[in-house]
Amino acid sequence: MSQPRQLRLGAFLMATGHHVAAWRHPQVNPDPLDLAGYKRAARIAEAACFDALFVADSVAAPTDAIASRTARSVYFEPLTLLSALSAVTERIGLVGTVTTSYNEPYHVARKFASLDHLSGGRAGWNLVTSDAAAEAQNFGLEAHIPHAERYARASEFQQVVQGLWDSWADDAFVRDQASGQFYDPAGLHVLDHVGEHFRVKGPLNVARSPQGRPVLVQAGSSETGRELAARTAEVVFTAQTSLASAQAFYADLKGRLGKYGRHEDELKIMPGVFVVVGHSEAEAREKFEQFQQLVEPEVGVALLGRMLGNFDLSGYPLDGPLPELPLTQDGQQSRQRLLTEIAGQENLSLAQLGRRIAGGRGHHTLVGTPLQIADELQAWFEGRGADGFNVLVPHLPAGLEDFATQVVPELQRRGLFRSEYQGTTLREHLGLKRPGNPFF
Amino acid sequence: MSQPRQLRLGAFLMATGHHVAAWRHPQVNPDPLDLAGYKRAARIAEAACFDALFVADSVAAPTDAIASRTARSVYFEPLTLLSALSAVTERIGLVGTVTTSYNEPYHVARKFASLDHLSGGRAGWNLVTSDAAAEAQNFGLEAHIPHAERYARASEFQQVVQGLWDSWADDAFVRDQASGQFYDPAGLHVLDHVGEHFRVKGPLNVARSPQGRPVLVQAGSSETGRELAARTAEVVFTAQTSLASAQAFYADLKGRLGKYGRHEDELKIMPGVFVVVGHSEAEAREKFEQFQQLVEPEVGVALLGRMLGNFDLSGYPLDGPLPELPLTQDGQQSRQRLLTEIAGQENLSLAQLGRRIAGGRGHHTLVGTPLQIADELQAWFEGRGADGFNVLVPHLPAGLEDFATQVVPELQRRGLFRSEYQGTTLREHLGLKRPGNPFF
Repeated sequence: MSQPRQLRLGAFLMATGHHVAAWRHPQVNPDPLDLAGYKRAARIAEAACFDALFVADSVAAPTDAIASRTARSVYFEPLTLLSALSAVTERIGLVGTVTTSYNEPYHVARKFASLDHLSGGRAGWNLVTSDAAAEAQNFGLEAHIPHAERYARASEFQQVVQGLWDSWADDAFVRDQASGQFYDPAGLHVLDHVGEHFRVKGPLNVARSPQGRPVLVQAGSSETGRELAARTAEVVFTAQTSLASAQAFYADLKGRLGKYGRHEDELKIMPGVFVVVGHSEAEAREKFEQFQQLVEPEVGVALLGRMLGNFDLSGYPLDGPLPELPLTQDGQQSRQRLLTEIAGQENLSLAQLGRRIAGGRGHHTLVGTPLQIADELQAWFEGRGADGFNVLVPHLPAGLEDFATQVVPELQRRGLFRSEYQGTTLREHLGLKRPGNPFF
Repeated sequence: MSQPRQLRLGAFLMATGHHVAAWRHPQVNPDPLDLAGYKRAARIAEAACFDALFVADSVAAPTDAIASRTARSVYFEPLTLLSALSAVTERIGLVGTVTTSYNEPYHVARKFASLDHLSGGRAGWNLVTSDAAAEAQNFGLEAHIPHAERYARASEFQQVVQGLWDSWADDAFVRDQASGQFYDPAGLHVLDHVGEHFRVKGPLNVARSPQGRPVLVQAGSSETGRELAARTAEVVFTAQTSLASAQAFYADLKGRLGKYGRHEDELKIMPGVFVVVGHSEAEAREKFEQFQQLVEPEVGVALLGRMLGNFDLSGYPLDGPLPELPLTQDGQQSRQRLLTEIAGQENLSLAQLGRRIAGGRGHHTLVGTPLQIADELQAWFEGRGADGFNVLVPHLPAGLEDFATQVVPELQRRGLFRSEYQGTTLREHLGLKRPGNPFF
């Protein structure tokens, strides 16, 4: 008997929480470098059988006018954080964000392979190409790399990383103590990659990892981003604000898989959902309002400017409309379209739009009872708008505990989500096959 | 009353052990990607109050003729490994090797700062410049960077990393929930480094770490290496094969500190010692002999060739003498001198020299009873040949347990080594001051 389709859940961990004002909430520890809080969140998510923890990243600290009034300047580096969390968890997947624009494929391949070994097959790489000029300036460049070039680099980068992960046959390491043969030379493949952006000999100095290859996650939704995802990604994290747009995105991306010889089950689409749970709808709304009240208008507007593609909106009146902005070349066109749409539909002022995105940051926002939230998730899941969700909560770890103890049981009751882990690796949780090694 | 001078101990962790044939020993788990073994070793070292764990590194896997007959092809990446170990230990320092030749300072500064936060102030960076052409070929280059250029780059790299570690005042993060001020802008220093090798804006996206700066370790013993160490290092790891040479190195390096305005206590010199312990001398010798018998002559000779500067010695007769070799430009001149000296003094054949270095790899080798070993360590320590030692054992974790349970108690009995940790950070263990931040 085949298992009915099950939804997947990722827990998005972001220091004090996803809401920009979370750190100001009296129940939140405002220190973003508090490992104990991360450990608690990881254990909550694992007890609820989440597929994975997701950790975002940037290789720069913002220093604009409102940076000192948000908690986003400093945080743990994802690979070190996830490695530490691997030692205090048993089953949950560990997905870390690393940019291809300011890294070398050998280091990235190696660190994720190492994490996959350390965690017994729970590593995932969220491949991003970065979206801030500030990052470029920490790596010898004046300006951010243009979108097309970033994606060309990312594509070759991914190819090199995959080739390095396949440096060794799964059974290469015979470790025969008696004969003295440690590995079978026939099980070694030297990549010898020479391309436009990279020249990497190999082999990787890590054995093929428990998952064969760590799970590849992506989030780009531009045309180029979708093509890269269709060719290579196994999970896509996306921001969709309505079931209709989620369904369109889902159909589009799944429809692209065939030309790369891939089946639609080989890529899981997981929109972000920003969730505030209450025992009653009124309680949930009041909880959300508490966070919203803590948002300074200037902070909300500055956050909005960043999300639109690093625009400085501080010169525009707070009670005026969102000004018309040039479509940026360097990154956030899809977000820009989305937010412009929301502002128009709801007739929001600049300050209102800023506050509006302070929690969900463009992700679908659900504020309600466990039943209401489960209904919505179920509708998206069964309506082919999502294979699962990345759950974003206003504050950590408490917001995650609310979701884990109130919404997850309801999803389990409906037969939509596991009550215990069936497998041990992230691939097994997600229902993804362990890839073979094409070199052997 | 001031504490009498205490020696420092580092536990050198290298997969199956330091002896090249360790993986073939029947009591050794031959899997170099066995986290459980590392955890056991870490706990043994911590129970014995070692100052730190040391993890070596290379960013390439050897693929020469004998690579398949040694266990050095694959292993954990140091930062991910040490982050995982940080979660299962409480006090012991965590020193990881990272090369400056094939990295970017922002990533290195960030990862060690993150580890320092994750571990509550236990991180150390062993700065190396790499010594293998194979590493260059994984990062877009044809050949290894020449020695002088490597050190020029390393020197600027260290300066950038230190500047990034000092991006924030220790008290910058006020996190005032009521007023909404997260950090005090006066506590932010934007580095804006522009140099010959690097252009790095900053700030680092990690707060100043518990130790102020992670501890800086180095191992270079060339003239350039000693100067860099005298100016910047806080621990120096070195290979010395006699008390006289250790004393000369110690006096030389400590003598260079003054011109950089540093006191001799600000740099701890820790030679490596390769130790095989037995209840009797005969038992120790027999134990050592067991490992030596497992060394295939070709493997020993190839290891020798690598240590001499990546020479292929496979064409020379095994029973002939060490051939005269050109002094290499790209790295291992000091090791080359040392090994040539040993071969001459002891009249060893190529195969014998290869087997000779298979265990200690040029480090001082002590095979004997706990009393004999403690005598020798004490003589070096009191004779100003060492401030402490990096302990290399033939096999892990068992060899470390021998040292921890037999030699350490003897050192403690003599008042030379702590019986419990007095501090919580690696700096406190080593007796190194927490550095101030020159920008504030």
